[in-house]
Amino acid sequence: MSSQAAKRVFVVLGVGNGLGTGGATARLFAKNGYEVALIARGGNTLESLAKEINSNGGQAKSFPVSSYSHEDVTNAWSSIHKAFPKPEYAIRAAVFNGGAGVFKKFLDITPEDVQTSLQASVASAFSFSRGAILAFKDNDIDESNGARGSLIFTGATASIRGNILTSSFAAGKHGLRALSQSLGKEFGQENIHVAHAIIDGGILTDRSREYKNDPSWETNANIHLKPESIAASYLYLVNQDRSAWTWELDLRPAHEKW
Amino acid sequence: MSSQAAKRVFVVLGVGNGLGTGGATARLFAKNGYEVALIARGGNTLESLAKEINSNGGQAKSFPVSSYSHEDVTNAWSSIHKAFPKPEYAIRAAVFNGGAGVFKKFLDITPEDVQTSLQASVASAFSFSRGAILAFKDNDIDESNGARGSLIFTGATASIRGNILTSSFAAGKHGLRALSQSLGKEFGQENIHVAHAIIDGGILTDRSREYKNDPSWETNANIHLKPESIAASYLYLVNQDRSAWTWELDLRPAHEKW
Amino acid sequence: MSSQAAKRVFVVLGVGNGLGTGGATARLFAKNGYEVALIARGGNTLESLAKEINSNGGQAKSFPVSSYSHEDVTNAWSSIHKAFPKPEYAIRAAVFNGGAGVFKKFLDITPEDVQTSLQASVASAFSFSRGAILAFKDNDIDESNGARGSLIFTGATASIRGNILTSSFAAGKHGLRALSQSLGKEFGQENIHVAHAIIDGGILTDRSREYKNDPSWETNANIHLKPESIAASYLYLVNQDRSAWTWELDLRPAHEKW
Amino acid sequence: MSSQAAKRVFVVLGVGNGLGTGGATARLFAKNGYEVALIARGGNTLESLAKEINSNGGQAKSFPVSSYSHEDVTNAWSSIHKAFPKPEYAIRAAVFNGGAGVFKKFLDITPEDVQTSLQASVASAFSFSRGAILAFKDNDIDESNGARGSLIFTGATASIRGNILTSSFAAGKHGLRALSQSLGKEFGQENIHVAHAIIDGGILTDRSREYKNDPSWETNANIHLKPESIAASYLYLVNQDRSAWTWELDLRPAHEKW
Repeated sequence: MSSQAAKRVFVVLGVGNGLGTGGATARLFAKNGYEVALIARGGNTLESLAKEINSNGGQAKSFPVSSYSHEDVTNAWSSIHKAFPKPEYAIRAAVFNGGAGVFKKFLDITPEDVQTSLQASVASAFSFSRGAILAFKDNDIDESNGARGSLIFTGATASIRGNILTSSFAAGKHGLRALSQSLGKEFGQENIHVAHAIIDGGILTDRSREYKNDPSWETNANIHLKPESIAASYLYLVNQDRSAWTWELDLRPAHEKW
Repeated sequence: MSSQAAKRVFVVLGVGNGLGTGGATARLFAKNGYEVALIARGGNTLESLAKEINSNGGQAKSFPVSSYSHEDVTNAWSSIHKAFPKPEYAIRAAVFNGGAGVFKKFLDITPEDVQTSLQASVASAFSFSRGAILAFKDNDIDESNGARGSLIFTGATASIRGNILTSSFAAGKHGLRALSQSLGKEFGQENIHVAHAIIDGGILTDRSREYKNDPSWETNANIHLKPESIAASYLYLVNQDRSAWTWELDLRPAHEKW
Repeated sequence: MSSQAAKRVFVVLGVGNGLGTGGATARLFAKNGYEVALIARGGNTLESLAKEINSNGGQAKSFPVSSYSHEDVTNAWSSIHKAFPKPEYAIRAAVFNGGAGVFKKFLDITPEDVQTSLQASVASAFSFSRGAILAFKDNDIDESNGARGSLIFTGATASIRGNILTSSFAAGKHGLRALSQSLGKEFGQENIHVAHAIIDGGILTDRSREYKNDPSWETNANIHLKPESIAASYLYLVNQDRSAWTWELDLRPAHEKW
Repeated sequence: MSSQAAKRVFVVLGVGNGLGTGGATARLFAKNGYEVALIARGGNTLESLAKEINSNGGQAKSFPVSSYSHEDVTNAWSSIHKAFPKPEYAIRAAVFNGGAGVFKKFLDITPEDVQTSLQASVASAFSFSRGAILAFKDNDIDESNGARGSLIFTGATASIRGNILTSSFAAGKHGLRALSQSLGKEFGQENIHVAHAIIDGGILTDRSREYKNDPSWETNANIHLKPESIAASYLYLVNQDRSAWTWELDLRPAHEKW
């Protein structure tokens, strides 16, 4: 059992180019005293995010993977355990920020699109969750929040509603939500906190900036989600005490229509 | 466009040994004037179900597949089109009765279990749906129900709730539900009726008989679902007229706790 | 206990001017062998609907009330029991088709609007349900569907979603849905079937015709709900056998966006 | 428009004897710099809670009402405006913690039970919300969270599920949830944040202590909800920035079964 004195480690899978939800979450947990383990494809971006966090006084290490296959994700967890060995460290929080979606009419969706969505949103989440749950079970209960560990999943509107153009994305995101609810019910009993966030709106990333190409959207926090605001909700979820844990919350900009 | 005079064809994927929901649905649609195309793994069982239907005055053909891969399912649809050519026939209704679930604690679930569930409940449903939608789009509107065709998915309690022991099954069933809702929204506009049935309770099959080993459960229709009763609801859904189509209904025995 | 040979009685509350869901349901159940008891405010309209049904070979009696207060609704049930005495008759099915909604911005809603919605959609439903459940409990089980009786509630999109302009209507309809689910769980155990229909779209009535003033809407069954189609679903629900009862289904026109 | 420099006022309706959710929320907001306005029936308890907060360095005033009728609630808001006049003060946050429930079999529920539930959970929430929305609309946007004001509703498991014994309680709580969603959609556009918390489990109050009479339940934060933990979530919701507002979250103890 890891002692209360162990340094807290935070693991996030899916940081893209470091400018979205995963990156913002990594930065925020680093600022709040967590050592950060970054899992993503694309070593260069990952490395520069780790450097940025380290140069700002945080502690981050990157664990690049070539895919989110079960083998690669499991290997990443092994590397993380080696890099943050017990009893000096205790892995206390993890965020699954994976998933991939194409927005296509149903008849344009290929079998590969379906496989990609299921692999990225569901299968890799099973692999990542396994690593997180195994790590958490080995912890004692942190008296600050009553948890052995906290596992958070990034969901979307498509997690609760299928729609025209979202059949493959929604299939994956619905599946991810089912996983998170099952885990919440199974492992709450062991003081592992599992949560699911429904992101309902457009997140301000460099990709969405380019895609929307609308300066007024970029500057108006009433109509976009800031990655930093999502990250703040994840930190809140981790800090909730055992007496009142949230499984699911939705997040949307003030002026979003829903 | 298929004319109103074409013989109606009903396609069902997933008939197991012919004694469950898929088999009952095939029998009922055959009795109600549909030619029946049976897709399943396991050619022998399939063939004996087809024979039974034919010997009772129905018309059924079996289309055995070695797997529910995209290629195999797509080939089955090709064979069905050849066996029931236009304009003599029009494929008017289809039921996806696939899906597979293991009931295990999360840490006992293997990556293969996850792949099996996603393949059986979601990926193969995309493949089957593609065949059905393509067939239906080629039909004229049947004036009896205002539909070019009707596509029904068999869901379960796990379609709307993850739970301890159901993480992989629920992930697949949630994904299937998302697909059905997306299809319902996209193709309702083209007069294709898509529906999803949440089966909430134990279905009386030879497998569940053996598993439960409880004669009182078998004889009490208040506490089990009869495959014939599920089939009756599918026929009802297909017959609904275009002015009031159901996307989703739940089905449970009178005394089921929920 | 009423014997199987007793004449079946169907009770509906809320028939407006007889041209909407309540009226269509009354006509359909009359055609299917039920004696019909009509409860509504407005005696004249009620009486002419009863006459119409009777002149078409059905059997209908009207039970006008001055309000849907507990007292008035309870008195109506007493009158119905007197008009259809046991053992000659058995009350077997009931539909609550009440409810009232104003569509106003929140700040325009008056306390009276709120009271009207809660009284019409919820409180009167408790009173009506009490009468139905008491009547059903006194029946034997009808072997045709395994039920002592069937109680159906007419819901709406607002039953599951609050929205701008619907706060008071949705509050009432959500409450009605909660009642129906509670009753379904409590009385399923006693073979009383309770169901809830979510009507998601515009129903073709003389009022909606006038309001929309759009002939193309009136003639296109892809975009409106016909009261007769809703009624057909209610008759289906009543006829479901005990092995597979539906608590909730949605009904919408083929081209409805949702 | 109230300026940013105005003192923030927090209003809570429903503080019972001060030992539950309402009281804990009042104490927490007082500690976080809000002047507190307490609305409840029962002047004595209310007064002693106000005294306690004031003696601990906070600022609280009590606004006793004899009922939660529209008139009484509206009068309380008038008194609050007089006690906290602009521009010195700005009402920035409000919690509706009303509601009443009886747990009875359906046939034991009286018409008065139904009226009490609807009045306490829904009608009084409309009245309270009106006061809150009117107060908030008059504020400028607080740059700390991007809101003119924040309105939170206390929900329960019965907000999303009817069950045996909860028909009247669930009817009220479902209605309250519909109100909160409608308000969230209507007034998000005006930077008023509306949220709904689903409390899923037993709250540790003196009443529940007495009712359960189980010391192990009282001392185990894994199995009860602490009012202080619920209050912490309300403060978090108010502090969320406009880019990522939550409408709904659930709260339950770590070991709760669901």
